Amino acid sequence: MYIKKIDDIPTAKVNMGVKAWKQVLIGEPMAPNFAMRRFILEPGGSIPSHTNTVEHEQFVLNGRARIGIGEKTYDVAKDDCIYIPAGTAHWYEAAGETPFEFICVVPNREDVVEVLEEEGA
Amino acid sequence: MYIKKIDDIPTAKVNMGVKAWKQVLIGEPMAPNFAMRRFILEPGGSIPSHTNTVEHEQFVLNGRARIGIGEKTYDVAKDDCIYIPAGTAHWYEAAGETPFEFICVVPNREDVVEVLEEEGA
Repeated sequence: MYIKKIDDIPTAKVNMGVKAWKQVLIGEPMAPNFAMRRFILEPGGSIPSHTNTVEHEQFVLNGRARIGIGEKTYDVAKDDCIYIPAGTAHWYEAAGETPFEFICVVPNREDVVEVLEEEGA
Repeated sequence: MYIKKIDDIPTAKVNMGVKAWKQVLIGEPMAPNFAMRRFILEPGGSIPSHTNTVEHEQFVLNGRARIGIGEKTYDVAKDDCIYIPAGTAHWYEAAGETPFEFICVVPNREDVVEVLEEEGA
């Protein structure tokens, strides 16, 4: 078993993002099937459109954001639940003056990430 | 994909608990590998000692509680991360004046729950 204060868990930069950070809250080798991570986007932070080969089960802990899933965009906020199927393009843009923070659970399986070209780039 | 406000998701009583409620935030048949649930223990609420045949990955959203895992007891509060291996006895007792709320993720696999006898019962 394992009990951890969130502030005792290391934070790493999300390399494809801007002002975007990630913590692995619960993961391998302890947890056999899936990993729970927290993502933090500072005000003005973003993660560009990309696909993963694994699905995402997400829960918004704090703040709000504009997010894209497939061809559509959505406004999400604290206490929203989000499911993104494997292979579906998605992106995040923090909105407002406070960090946008969310839990994101993924299966323990190889994840190939493909960053998609920005429009006009 | 799926985006849901938490207040739009049905709440069910946890039958083995006292003042204990559960929501399935993201689950089957949409999500192929694991389910994200929220548990809510009102002040004075509890769930008795039991085992599951699946593991739990948990994150405390609000409030605090005294919990037992195996032979030990722990005080947990908002923002704590908890991992309970499959087969390990565990229980929860809400503490304080506000609800104790936590995310609990489990694999999509048959879960056999065994409620353990209380001491002295």
